[in-house]
Amino acid sequence: MDTRLKYLTNLLTESYAKHEEIIKINSINLLNRKLIVDIVEKLRSLIFPGYFGKKNISAASVEYYTGYLLEELSFSLSEQIARALKHSGDYADLDDSVVAGKAKEISFQFLSKLPEVRAYLADDVSASFDGDPAAFSLDEIISSYPGIYAITVYRLAHELYELAVPLIPRVMTEHAHSVTGIDIHPGAVIGHHFFIDHGTGIVIGETSIIGNFVKIYQGVTLGALSTRGGQTLKQVKRHPTIENHVTIYSGASIMGGSTVIGEGVVIGSNAFVTKSVPEKTKVSVKNPELQFKPATSGKVVSVELEQTEFWDWMI
Amino acid sequence: MDTRLKYLTNLLTESYAKHEEIIKINSINLLNRKLIVDIVEKLRSLIFPGYFGKKNISAASVEYYTGYLLEELSFSLSEQIARALKHSGDYADLDDSVVAGKAKEISFQFLSKLPEVRAYLADDVSASFDGDPAAFSLDEIISSYPGIYAITVYRLAHELYELAVPLIPRVMTEHAHSVTGIDIHPGAVIGHHFFIDHGTGIVIGETSIIGNFVKIYQGVTLGALSTRGGQTLKQVKRHPTIENHVTIYSGASIMGGSTVIGEGVVIGSNAFVTKSVPEKTKVSVKNPELQFKPATSGKVVSVELEQTEFWDWMI
Amino acid sequence: MDTRLKYLTNLLTESYAKHEEIIKINSINLLNRKLIVDIVEKLRSLIFPGYFGKKNISAASVEYYTGYLLEELSFSLSEQIARALKHSGDYADLDDSVVAGKAKEISFQFLSKLPEVRAYLADDVSASFDGDPAAFSLDEIISSYPGIYAITVYRLAHELYELAVPLIPRVMTEHAHSVTGIDIHPGAVIGHHFFIDHGTGIVIGETSIIGNFVKIYQGVTLGALSTRGGQTLKQVKRHPTIENHVTIYSGASIMGGSTVIGEGVVIGSNAFVTKSVPEKTKVSVKNPELQFKPATSGKVVSVELEQTEFWDWMI
Repeated sequence: MDTRLKYLTNLLTESYAKHEEIIKINSINLLNRKLIVDIVEKLRSLIFPGYFGKKNISAASVEYYTGYLLEELSFSLSEQIARALKHSGDYADLDDSVVAGKAKEISFQFLSKLPEVRAYLADDVSASFDGDPAAFSLDEIISSYPGIYAITVYRLAHELYELAVPLIPRVMTEHAHSVTGIDIHPGAVIGHHFFIDHGTGIVIGETSIIGNFVKIYQGVTLGALSTRGGQTLKQVKRHPTIENHVTIYSGASIMGGSTVIGEGVVIGSNAFVTKSVPEKTKVSVKNPELQFKPATSGKVVSVELEQTEFWDWMI
Repeated sequence: MDTRLKYLTNLLTESYAKHEEIIKINSINLLNRKLIVDIVEKLRSLIFPGYFGKKNISAASVEYYTGYLLEELSFSLSEQIARALKHSGDYADLDDSVVAGKAKEISFQFLSKLPEVRAYLADDVSASFDGDPAAFSLDEIISSYPGIYAITVYRLAHELYELAVPLIPRVMTEHAHSVTGIDIHPGAVIGHHFFIDHGTGIVIGETSIIGNFVKIYQGVTLGALSTRGGQTLKQVKRHPTIENHVTIYSGASIMGGSTVIGEGVVIGSNAFVTKSVPEKTKVSVKNPELQFKPATSGKVVSVELEQTEFWDWMI
Repeated sequence: MDTRLKYLTNLLTESYAKHEEIIKINSINLLNRKLIVDIVEKLRSLIFPGYFGKKNISAASVEYYTGYLLEELSFSLSEQIARALKHSGDYADLDDSVVAGKAKEISFQFLSKLPEVRAYLADDVSASFDGDPAAFSLDEIISSYPGIYAITVYRLAHELYELAVPLIPRVMTEHAHSVTGIDIHPGAVIGHHFFIDHGTGIVIGETSIIGNFVKIYQGVTLGALSTRGGQTLKQVKRHPTIENHVTIYSGASIMGGSTVIGEGVVIGSNAFVTKSVPEKTKVSVKNPELQFKPATSGKVVSVELEQTEFWDWMI
């Protein structure tokens, strides 16, 4: 086995020399994914105190608990931000202490935003309760709803994205994607009272803009029409704008950077929308007709959906 | 940094005072999600002994192992049930010892149901093997199929739901949702020989009723037509009834509380069904026609699917 | 409680006697799922050194690190392979030392393939960067893209599948399925420069064949037309063949073992394809027409998609 081990080791080190683009030598400054997930969980404890992390917080101790958690957080967050900055072109050549100072500043600005993030999330939780007949209590929503988890992580990641922190925001939202099946790019802009039901398969692209009181169901895509341009499309608005009070039912796709879904619009299940829709309009796939083939007669019958009812459901 | 830490701590504690609905003070009685996941894993060890948890169980030791695990389980389960009961309106004001007694009783009733749950799951495993040409062995199915994981957790959660335990059932099924992408509400009623293939994106709503020998593929929704009513729709049957021996192919949606899919029906991929279907009928989207545009001529040609073949596949 | 514990223990042991097919007595040889996940993570460290596992690898230490990891790996991998072999019909009756020798041999052959797997993955990472305007750097892709995670685990599992190792390959890909929502069967054959974007809900069946430079979006199924035959369909080619430079947009399904999607074809979102498509053809659902119902007039208007534009996007 010893010669075999040597043989395999040589094979791999030769391979490392050949594909240097997927190897990191001296990458002590690379992000630590586990630490970033830990940061996310600590931030959740600060946003919903008593729900996660330490549970027996008394009114008297909440301030100490908060201060203690904030100190821990700002230390590890600054360190990860410094690593991420070293990574990007602009900071690569700067002195370590300069980058560390910049990272501390960004970390402080980010943490100052937490009360604002909490205000948004309080509205999101309330929208989940109002919109879901199966919701039992706010506690159930905060403890177990994947939509709230994904939105929480997105709102945090978005603040870091706005502060131009590289890498970390995407690692955070991809962690939430893995946990929930909901893929929200940290670059998207999303208003308050945002409600995601079920959620698996949702994709919200980088340049999407979403207003307030929007409701999105499982399998919805806010996507780009074409990405063949690849890296040349960077910064171009490729994803749609969704105005206030829009509902998008399961499996629908809204595509394109100049597509605007007007206020109060309802998009029916599985609709594939590539053009703007004027406000207060209901949109449905045309003729959602089915064919029935009974085993007995074998005669195929077309069954049309009564549109009147259909429009009635789409509220 | 010290003054900054103080500043941030003040910001957050002020925010806590403003949004009290998403903070839990003195929440020592709140559920512990990690412990509930641990309970789920122990229950799986009791249902499929030798597959999970301790592996080298001999015929002689199985009784001791079972007794040991049951004792551990009933202790932690009772405690979590007591916390959940304290949470709901009915038990909030009762004495701790009264709630603890009630919780022990519920825990005992639940554990008494395990043999019945095992009988259902033995049939589910067998249905997975019979229905999937890619299945290699029962061991492979029990060890790795996400469908079996989701159904196991659902069947356990449903028994707790039937015993009117709040919160815990949903935390359990949302854990399975996170692991598998399969979202089954613990309130759904599901018969034996239930087979889920692939599974990602499946949603089975709270008031769904599913018979025996039902087969469901990835991306299927058993949903509600409209949830605008929100909390006023609580307890109303909003999700469909699926009778025995029904197969629902990938991406199909069956919607509405009065929709009944009759015995032996086959629903084709991507069908959107909002009306009842009589027994032994095959249902397909109408004219699944495509358009082909060759690069050479550029002339668009419509290509119709031969319905005869289509019906033949839907078995 | 003592008599209750006895009662429950008896109930369960009786149930074990009744459903022996879902119990493993003396299963010391059963796979250890956690160890297999650990093996996957170590293999990722060897493939992308410096990204995962130990991070501060210097050019001088990379050889030692590689040798050390390989030795650990080959030990635990051989052991799990031996367990898997004991499991399958062919090896069940052979002497333990014979099986262990065979397992070591397979483990060596598998590890010798790692440089080849790395070469494929270097191309996959490069395809992800070129194809995604939202991609920031190769580091971001390797650290956080679920598509790369799923493809990495698939490529490793496929090598073990080719070496006829039972059980382990599927446990590996189902782990990736759980983490990413992307379900690739280890039996599928996939060329280089494979790009998966978003990925949730993708299903790639056991007998699929995929060429080079193929791009697949979320919710795509490469599936079988009918699996009613169950175990009698084992080994039959049930899933499609996708040739080089094909793009398949979100939600499309390509079904059937004799379906061949020719070189350079583009399949539009939500298309359901059951017939072969000649090379360089664009395929779209016919008449992706929608109905608009404005709240003001209430008059339903049909809105057709301009096909010209539609074909333009499909590049």
